[in-house]
Parts: sequence; C-alpha cells; structure tokens
Amino acid sequence: MLIFKAFSIVLWSETLMETECSCSHVENLWFSLTDVLLKMHSVGICGSDVHYWERGRIGDYVVKKPMVLGHEASGTVIKVGSSVTHLQPGDRVAIEPGAPRETDEFCKIGRYNLSPTIFFCATPPDDGNLCRYYKHNANFCYKLPDNVTFEEGALVEPLSVGIHACRRAGVTLGSRVFICGAGPIGLVSLLVSKAMGAAQVAVSDLSASRLEKAKEIGADFTVKIKNERPEEVAHMVEGLLGCMPEITVECTGAEACIQTGIYATRAGGTLVLVGVGPEMVTVPIVNAALREVDIKGVFRYCNTWPMAISMLASKRVNVQSLVTHRFPLEQALDAFETTRRGLGVKVMLKCDPSDQNP
Amino acid sequence: MLIFKAFSIVLWSETLMETECSCSHVENLWFSLTDVLLKMHSVGICGSDVHYWERGRIGDYVVKKPMVLGHEASGTVIKVGSSVTHLQPGDRVAIEPGAPRETDEFCKIGRYNLSPTIFFCATPPDDGNLCRYYKHNANFCYKLPDNVTFEEGALVEPLSVGIHACRRAGVTLGSRVFICGAGPIGLVSLLVSKAMGAAQVAVSDLSASRLEKAKEIGADFTVKIKNERPEEVAHMVEGLLGCMPEITVECTGAEACIQTGIYATRAGGTLVLVGVGPEMVTVPIVNAALREVDIKGVFRYCNTWPMAISMLASKRVNVQSLVTHRFPLEQALDAFETTRRGLGVKVMLKCDPSDQNP
Amino acid sequence: MLIFKAFSIVLWSETLMETECSCSHVENLWFSLTDVLLKMHSVGICGSDVHYWERGRIGDYVVKKPMVLGHEASGTVIKVGSSVTHLQPGDRVAIEPGAPRETDEFCKIGRYNLSPTIFFCATPPDDGNLCRYYKHNANFCYKLPDNVTFEEGALVEPLSVGIHACRRAGVTLGSRVFICGAGPIGLVSLLVSKAMGAAQVAVSDLSASRLEKAKEIGADFTVKIKNERPEEVAHMVEGLLGCMPEITVECTGAEACIQTGIYATRAGGTLVLVGVGPEMVTVPIVNAALREVDIKGVFRYCNTWPMAISMLASKRVNVQSLVTHRFPLEQALDAFETTRRGLGVKVMLKCDPSDQNP
Amino acid sequence: MLIFKAFSIVLWSETLMETECSCSHVENLWFSLTDVLLKMHSVGICGSDVHYWERGRIGDYVVKKPMVLGHEASGTVIKVGSSVTHLQPGDRVAIEPGAPRETDEFCKIGRYNLSPTIFFCATPPDDGNLCRYYKHNANFCYKLPDNVTFEEGALVEPLSVGIHACRRAGVTLGSRVFICGAGPIGLVSLLVSKAMGAAQVAVSDLSASRLEKAKEIGADFTVKIKNERPEEVAHMVEGLLGCMPEITVECTGAEACIQTGIYATRAGGTLVLVGVGPEMVTVPIVNAALREVDIKGVFRYCNTWPMAISMLASKRVNVQSLVTHRFPLEQALDAFETTRRGLGVKVMLKCDPSDQNP
Repeated sequence: MLIFKAFSIVLWSETLMETECSCSHVENLWFSLTDVLLKMHSVGICGSDVHYWERGRIGDYVVKKPMVLGHEASGTVIKVGSSVTHLQPGDRVAIEPGAPRETDEFCKIGRYNLSPTIFFCATPPDDGNLCRYYKHNANFCYKLPDNVTFEEGALVEPLSVGIHACRRAGVTLGSRVFICGAGPIGLVSLLVSKAMGAAQVAVSDLSASRLEKAKEIGADFTVKIKNERPEEVAHMVEGLLGCMPEITVECTGAEACIQTGIYATRAGGTLVLVGVGPEMVTVPIVNAALREVDIKGVFRYCNTWPMAISMLASKRVNVQSLVTHRFPLEQALDAFETTRRGLGVKVMLKCDPSDQNP
Repeated sequence: MLIFKAFSIVLWSETLMETECSCSHVENLWFSLTDVLLKMHSVGICGSDVHYWERGRIGDYVVKKPMVLGHEASGTVIKVGSSVTHLQPGDRVAIEPGAPRETDEFCKIGRYNLSPTIFFCATPPDDGNLCRYYKHNANFCYKLPDNVTFEEGALVEPLSVGIHACRRAGVTLGSRVFICGAGPIGLVSLLVSKAMGAAQVAVSDLSASRLEKAKEIGADFTVKIKNERPEEVAHMVEGLLGCMPEITVECTGAEACIQTGIYATRAGGTLVLVGVGPEMVTVPIVNAALREVDIKGVFRYCNTWPMAISMLASKRVNVQSLVTHRFPLEQALDAFETTRRGLGVKVMLKCDPSDQNP
Repeated sequence: MLIFKAFSIVLWSETLMETECSCSHVENLWFSLTDVLLKMHSVGICGSDVHYWERGRIGDYVVKKPMVLGHEASGTVIKVGSSVTHLQPGDRVAIEPGAPRETDEFCKIGRYNLSPTIFFCATPPDDGNLCRYYKHNANFCYKLPDNVTFEEGALVEPLSVGIHACRRAGVTLGSRVFICGAGPIGLVSLLVSKAMGAAQVAVSDLSASRLEKAKEIGADFTVKIKNERPEEVAHMVEGLLGCMPEITVECTGAEACIQTGIYATRAGGTLVLVGVGPEMVTVPIVNAALREVDIKGVFRYCNTWPMAISMLASKRVNVQSLVTHRFPLEQALDAFETTRRGLGVKVMLKCDPSDQNP
Repeated sequence: MLIFKAFSIVLWSETLMETECSCSHVENLWFSLTDVLLKMHSVGICGSDVHYWERGRIGDYVVKKPMVLGHEASGTVIKVGSSVTHLQPGDRVAIEPGAPRETDEFCKIGRYNLSPTIFFCATPPDDGNLCRYYKHNANFCYKLPDNVTFEEGALVEPLSVGIHACRRAGVTLGSRVFICGAGPIGLVSLLVSKAMGAAQVAVSDLSASRLEKAKEIGADFTVKIKNERPEEVAHMVEGLLGCMPEITVECTGAEACIQTGIYATRAGGTLVLVGVGPEMVTVPIVNAALREVDIKGVFRYCNTWPMAISMLASKRVNVQSLVTHRFPLEQALDAFETTRRGLGVKVMLKCDPSDQNP
C-alpha cells in the first residue's frame, strides 16, 4: 500500500501547525467512485485563511477542531475513482473548493454555491488543501491546458470571485465600473471587468500603493480616499468617469463604502457587495430603491472555472502579475505572516518539493 | 372657441382648494400634436396625494406653487392632436401619469420611469388630473375595452405599482411570496402575485381589519404583527408557508420591516422595496449578501398599462373590490379626509357630474 | 428477504408484455445510498410510450432490448437509501423521470435536462416505471402534500412540459398566447399559460372535439383548421386576439404549424417548439429573424416539479379533468389501445391493486 | 438665409446620381425642436446600399422615388433645434440612422428597432445621409470624444450590428464563438465577441483573403469552406475549438450556413441569424429544438451607440483597420463600384472637402 507524506498546514486554537503524518489514512478513507487523489502544486493564501487563523471564526463558521487551511489550489491527478471519465493520472487541474454534497434545490437550478450542505475547503469543519496530497470530487477538478500554469490554476479561485461578482453585476461591453477597494478581490474584479468589455474602471482605496497596483493592471482611474464623506467620493467618481457608473463592486465591507456605492451608482444600475463587513449597517437604502439601483450580494461563486480557464488559456488576462510572493510549503508560517502584514498582493505556497515553478 | 369649466382640486400651502375657472387656458395652451384632451371620469386618491396635502413635500419633491392633485385616473377623449392615430374622440382611456419629456438613455432602454425629466401628474411642479378636463400625452393614454369600467381604468395605476414590483421580484408559477403591509399597495401586490401564478402568499400588518381585507381578496396566510422582533416575524412566515418565501414585497418602508424582509427571504431570492421610509436605515445587509438575496427598489412603474388592461379585460383579477368609498368631485375635501383617516381601502372621486357610475 | 411481485409492462419487438417476475432482483440490485424504493400507484400513458410500441424508436432512441414503459408516475416510498433525509417510508411522491447520472456542465448550470448521460424512464435503454415496484433517485422524487392526489402527482410530468415551454416562452401577466395543437401537451400548455397570467389564449387544431376540450378547460378562442395556408391561420389568430400574440407554443411538430407559428408571432416575441416533427422542415426563417421572433425548442423540462406541486396544492389549476380513462395495470394493453386510437385525453394506469382511486 | 450646397448621392432607377442642389430646402423644411443640422464628414458604404443600387429593393422595401443613400455616418453639428440640450454647434457626432417616429409599444420597452414606423436612413422611402448637409433627430446623434475619429464614428453603425448580435447571443467571458462569414458583419462580430470576453472565435468563409483579414484582426481559427456538408463543417469547428461553440453568429444568410449553424452550436446555446437570405429555407429545426439551441434573429440594433463609443474611446477595439478604401464624395460612383466588386472591407466616402482625414 502506498504511503504518502501528508504534510499539511493545520489550524487549531489560533495556531498554525505543520503536520507530518503518514497518508495511509487517505488510502483507508472511503474513496468515492467520483473522487480523485491529487498531488498538490500551488496554493494561494486568502484573507479568509488568515482571518480564521487570527480569530478562529468568520460569522457562524467556527473552527472547533483542527482544520487544514487552503482553498486556492491546483495540482496533479495521481489516482482517479472508478467512475471518473474526464480525468486521468497526470492531468494538471485547478480545484473548485466548493463541491455540493447533495443534489438539492439550489444545485438543481445551477446555484450550487447556495447549497447549505456544500463541502468547502477550509471552511470549518471541512479541511482545505494546503498539503502535499489531497482528495477531491473529480467533478470539481478542471483540467488545465498546457499553456496555463499551476499558479494561474490556483488563481482561478480568486478570479472566480471577480467573475461571479461581475456577472451578477451585469458588466458588459462599454460598462463604466466603480470598484471600492484595491485588495486582491478588488484587483481581480478590475481584471474581470476589463475582460468583459468594461470601457472604464475607477478603483478607490485608502492605500496609495494598492492603487498603484490597480493602475498597473488596468484601472483607468484611481481614487485615493482620505476622510471624504460617501457623497463626496461618489461625486469624485462621477467626475473621473464623466458619468455615474452603471455598476459598483464593493470589495471592503465597510459601512462607508456601502453608502458610497449606493450614492455612486447610476439609476437603474447595480451595486454588488463582495466585501463582508459588520452584521448591521446603516445605509441610504431608500436612495437606492427610488433609483432602482439593485443591491446584490455574492457568496463565493458557481460555474466560473470553465470560463476562467478558457480566459486564461486565451491569454486575454494576466493574473500572474498578482503573485508577489512565493514560499515552499515548509515555510507556510512565514507565508501567512506575510499575508497577515498586508505585504504584496497574493502569496503562493508551493506544495511540491520537486517543482516550485509557477 | 370652446370654454370648459376647469373645476380642479388644487393644493397650495397645505390647503386643498376647489378652483372653478374657465378652461379657455387649456385651449390656448400649446396643444401638442401628440396630446389628447380628456373629460375626466374617475380619479382615485393615493397616499401620496394626502402626504403632499399634509406635509407639502415628499423627499426632494416640494410643492412650491399651487398644484392640481390626482394621478390614478381615467376619462374620455374629447379632442386629439393632429398626429394621434390610435385614439379618437369618444374613446374611454386609462391614463399613465408619467410621460417622458425627452428620449433619453432611460427611455431608450425601456426604463422610462427613471427619466429625470419625466412629466408626472401631481408630482410638483407638474399638475395632476383631479379636475373636469385634462390634457395628456396621447401615447400614455390607453384605450379601455368595453368590459373594463372607468374605475378599473383608474385602478390600473395602483395595480401598476404591484405589477412593476412583482415583475422585478420575478414572481412566477408556484412562487411563495411574503408581503409586508396590507395597505392599498400591499393588496395590489397580493392580487398581482396571485395573477402571476404565486402558489401561496402571506401578508403581514399591524391592523387586523387590513389583514381581513387581504384574506378576503386572496391571501393564503396573514400575520398579525405586535411587537415581535424581525427574526421572529421571519420565522412565523416560514412556519406558515412551510418554507421560506423566494420573494418578499416590502410595502411599508419601516426599518423593522426591511429587516424582516431580509431575514425572511430564501437564499437566492429577492426582496423588493416598494414602501418609502426614512433616508437612512440600519439593516443586516451582510445577511442578504451572503445568501444572495437581491434587494431591488421600485420607482413607480413602466410598461404596465397594456398588461394590466389585458388582465382586467380577461376578468382574472378583481380590483373593483378595492374601492370602498366614492365621492363626487365637489366633495373632494370629504374624500381626502376619508383617506387621511385611513378609512376603507381606495377612495374614488367622480369627476363627471353626468356619470357617477363605476 | 422481502420478495416483491414485479409485475411490469415491458415493450419488446413492438409487443407489449406483462411480466410477472419475482422482484428479488430489485433487492439484489445495487441500491444506492440516494435511492428510494417505491410502490407505484398511478402512471399516465404518454404519446411517446405508444410511439415506441408502434415504431420501436423515436429519432436516435431505439428499443434494442426489452424495456419497461411508463414515465408519468407517482407512488409511495417503501424503503429509503441510507443517505436520504428528505423522504421516509409512507411518503407519497411524484417521480421526475429524468435523473442525471453525472454532475456535468449542464447539471452545474441548472439545465440538467440537457445532460447527455441522464437516466430517463422509458427512453431506451432505461426502464420506465409502469410496474408494481420501482427504484428511483430520491433527489428526483418529490413529496406530495395531502391535498394532491396520486393522479395529480403523475400529471406533474405532462404539466412540466407545459411549464418548461411557457417559462422558456416568457409567458407572464397579460400575455396573449397562441397554442398550435389541442392534444395533451397543447392542453397543459393552455392550463399553464393561464396560471402564469396570460390574458388570452387561442388554440388551434384540426379536431373539433379536441378544441371543445380546450374551450372547456379555459381557451379564450379556438381555431378550427381545415386547409388554410399558414399566413391565413396567422391572420385568423390575430383577428381573434385583437392583436398578434407575443408567444406561440407549437405542439404538433407539423411543418405547416411551424410556419404558422412564425407568421403568427408578434415582432419581438417567441415561438416555442414543443412538438417533434420531421428532421428537416422548410420555414420562413428570415421572417422570424427580421422581426426578432426567437425560436426556442424545449427538451423535456427541468426544475418544474416543485413549482408544479405548489401550484397543484394551491388548487389554482385543475389537471384532474384531463384524465378521461382509467385501467388497472393488468389491463395495460386495453389502456395502450385506447391511447393509440386517440380516445380521450389522458389514460391512467392504476398500479396498486388495493387502491385504484385518483 | 443660409444656402447650403446639398451635394447628395441619390439613387433612382438603379442609377446613382450626384445631385448638386441648393439646400435652402433644408432651411425651409420644418426643422423640429429636437433636430440638429449636420455637416457630414465620413459615410461608409454598406452592402445594402449596393443592393438597393443593383436591385432597387430589399425584401418589401422598394425604391419608388429618388432616395439619398448612406447610413454609416458621422459629422459636425452646425445648428440645433430649440429644445436640444445635449448638443451644440461644433460637436462631432456619430449618427444612429434609425430614429423612431412614434412612442409605440416597441419604443416603450426599449426595442425601438422593431418600431414599424421608424425613420431609417436610406431605407426607402427615407433619405440617407450621403451628402454634404443632413438633418437628424438630435436624440439619435451621439457626441464623439476627442480621441475617437469621424471614421470610427461612422463605423459605430456596422459595429452596432455586431454588438446587437453578440448581445442577443449572450457572448460573455470565456465564450467559444463560431462566426459564419468573414465579410464586414462577420468581422465586426468577431471584434465585438473578443471585446466581450470570448475566449476563442472561429470564423468560416469561402474566401481565403477574407479569412486572412479575420485572422489579422483576431480570429483564433479560420475555416476555409469548399463543398463540405453542413455536418462536416460543424465537425471541423468543434475540432478546432476543442468543443462545440456555445454561440454561432450566422452572417451569410445562406441555407447551408444556417444548417451548419444549427449542427455546430452546443446544446443550450444560441444561433444568431444576422445574414439575410431567401424567404424560405430548409433547416434541421428539430435538431435545434431538442438540444434547446435558441435561434434568434437581429433586426438592425438598438441601444448600441453609447456602448460602442465608450468602447472606441477606451481603445479596446481597433475598427479603423476595417477601412480599406477612401474616396471624396465627388467620386462616389467609384466608391460604390469598389464595394460592388467586393474589393477591400469597408469603403469610406469623405463628405467634407476641407477635411478628408479619418
């Protein structure tokens, strides 16, 4: 029987641990007909990973037992379940971390991200894939073309947040878009907006360096926020774009930014809430309502991997530039520390000791 | 030259006045090629008419000079502009009170209700049609079939609010709908939901008598609110319907009801805001966002008259039962007083001395 | 070990056979964690069942080995797989005959009816459920409320064709609809159109008795076709409705009817093709194209059972009147003969010897 | 009174005439409050202009009196009607050739292209704008930003056909698109598909040189058609793209190409018909219907100018490369002859003797 080294990055009691255990348990686990076993290659660190590390919870999701982190990932198939037909050992794949456990009403209508019993990597109690070897539902592993790197494959996950947000917002040819926040999600929303045909995108943030990055990857305008009132920021955005944007993508979760998003969006437009903030916020909802500005949230994503991979293969979007740091899996603590300090944009962990390439 | 008696109900300085003036001014006014002159028959009183009477303003709309009230109206064509082809003298018509002045971006995409320069009856500074004779854009006058009464024609206006709300909400066959508030708008939303195929509709209100009316016209369940918390009301609604509603139509504008609407609506569903409340409200917006409950406002309506009239002609909806009081135009003050006191549901003013029938 | 009598209606070599075999094979079959075993109650006969009987094939689907017929069905759960949580023995259920075998791209986007590997009752080589006992994917069995009969449960299947067609057509409040063909599918499309709020529905057919039935269940107008040209029929429909219908639902598959559907539909409207006719047809497609009349087909249905059951529970639709004949399962040959001869509308087979009620 | 030289290119009796007349008639014409007078700059020749020249008709549109040609145009405002607020003399504008005459049902829902009484340049009996001076509805003249040339402004018209087609087709991020025909409309559909995020576009044509042009402006794959059967071409397209395209844009009108479009498009996808061919065609419509491949036509366009201009201003699309020939207005006959012979892609006529720049 094969024994894998299942070196994993496990979170427990607000402590990150490197666990070096035999992976025979993987073999002994019930390996479903539709599962694949993967040798992991690249795993990006997400803000939520750090949030769980620091706080032990996000909303109602509480870490109650040791949990492997990581959900922005790609790897290589090394074993396939007996009913898997679309993958075979050796295939390089991007992993969609959410895989429904049931065929419920949400799955049936194509909104499986809303399925309450969905498995999701590194959302407690489900383990993530920041480890050497990992088993996943084959239906949610997508083969990478030769011209797409493992890191691009891992970046499909954050890119998917942007795709889902922009798709729900209805970004299309000629759209004017305002993005609040130039963190990783703001940046992928920018990339996706442009790829969907947006004519002009304005991005706001408190940080000049983040805005610099936004400019670098395609923002037409940037808005450095100091202590302006929401109406003032909205007015600045209108001035830059030459009109109010049809679409605002809010990526901070801050109350003031949600307010800004409402004031900034053109009548008949859409405000998409991607950032997650406090439970209760005070907002000028009647302003949105009377101008028919729709307010839509996004919960993760669904049906984004195929289009993201097509897009990456077509070389129309450059996500690789988002990767600012790389660490081997053994230096995961340094990697997390880097992310926690807000250095760079995207930190990648390299899980395969024999291949640390992008 | 014809001289009409232009008896009108005019609002000024929070006082309603009956103005008996010669209508030669109507004749002298620039009568556009696309206008029609109407002999008014039935005009319903809307809450907004009373609001302007009592407060002199609604939000940014301020009564700064005498204004004729009334915008839920029907009448008979007595003269047509030279380029009008779809109407002729003698035609009975329902009047859509909003008629765009410009062919702007909103008109071009079919959302003319959002046009900032739209003419709208009895929204200052535009005069309404609570009078004997009235001139309107012929394109926004719709011929009534013989089997639709003038009062049904006037009720197309409140019905349109319900249609626009339910259409934006996506009510369809088998929908479960929760309606907050059993006033006139809540009731028409109920009628329209049912007509669009909703399987079950639950309606909430503080008033037992209003809920009685809701039950009478088709509510499957009613929820009498006392002082329950929003989460509790949401739970009650789920219990009654046997599941969370896909759609909530909020018709009160109250902060607590908006909160309830968010908690009550099923993941992936829609909360439509029809009621207009305070400028700023505190709401659990992250709860809506993470469950992808879309929050959509409605501003009046567009493209509803033809479908409403088709529906009325098909006798599939009984709006006549909403009319609880009738007054001749000369007793307009009594009529307004009746509405102000919250007596009955819909009060009709009869503008034609020679025909006071429904 | 339980032994069930698996009396089934099997088709082979264009012959219907009653097979009385022990059902131990059911027990011995791999009974998936997500399956339920059902005691069948009512199964309607569909035109396709008769078509397979007479011709041995429909298009590319060929009966190459004995196949149990039947796919309009309801029954009672008598055993549940170990991971089934939403059903328990004793539950009365309606059966959705199509249950995807894979979580492919079509399933993920909510259009599982297009999944090429879907299991579908009585489409070769998959067995149907015209038998005493039957095993099915629990996720595609839907609990019936107490006030919905087994026969209504079985009729959810043909009703679903109408729902899927009307939904793809965009039938809504006030729609004017033209339905070509007053067979079972035309009739359910009529019922569904009305339930979705259609103001007026015109139905055409060659048969006066079929049109009589259409009139009886709600058609506003009927069009008896003799040998009129398609343009003439279109003109007759416009005359009856007072305008061109926004929507045409073609339920015959005949070339002339598809032509009629194109000519009849209003610019900007939709022609839905439900009837299946010859492989190649000659049609005035440029007429449709230049008036932006969309031509949409329907393949079975998806996501219709919950809304259909809600609708039936709300008593807003009377499908029971479609059942014109009932036979015990043992007289299946007589039942098929009745359908083949075009007698009545819907023929029901009663599979439970101890309960032959609706 | 100003007298303009109204040199126009007029078609009559299948003859093109250069008419040098005084333009005092323009001044004397009823100049509507909402009109603008334009000094024309660049007008592209469209296939339909040539078609009218050669045949005197397109379908039901027959040239019954002398008609000025031209509808792909841009110019400079020299006079504005008294109620025009968004334009002023000196503004450079692109002209949308279709301007509704009535506010009918189609205009109200935002599909004004379907309005049966619409004014449309160079569709008989309406005059086009291939002349020195031209009067148009100001609401359908769109100001060009400084960084968009007059020729780009004129090219908004053919680009709009591509936008309308791709929008109705639902092209979005990652789409795989197949375009039949590499003439001007095929090429703009290619440009627009890419700009909307299509991952891969395959283009077919009989002509190697046209395919060369397609390749040059962004086609990922080209398919040189000889005498393959439609199924074979469909198979070739699938082979090139690695999967069936979700979307096919048919730009030829040929029966064989419509057939190919049906066979080629993936289940659940859309075939858009842009090319106009014979009145009746024989097509495998049941193949489309059973795979739910929607067949949608396009009639011109609506609501495309603003997004097209935004897109051009953003420099995300290069339409200038489509212009292969330029002629001064006085050499219009040579220009038409060039188009008729199929030389080049887009021929531009330069109407302003003092400025023949792009």
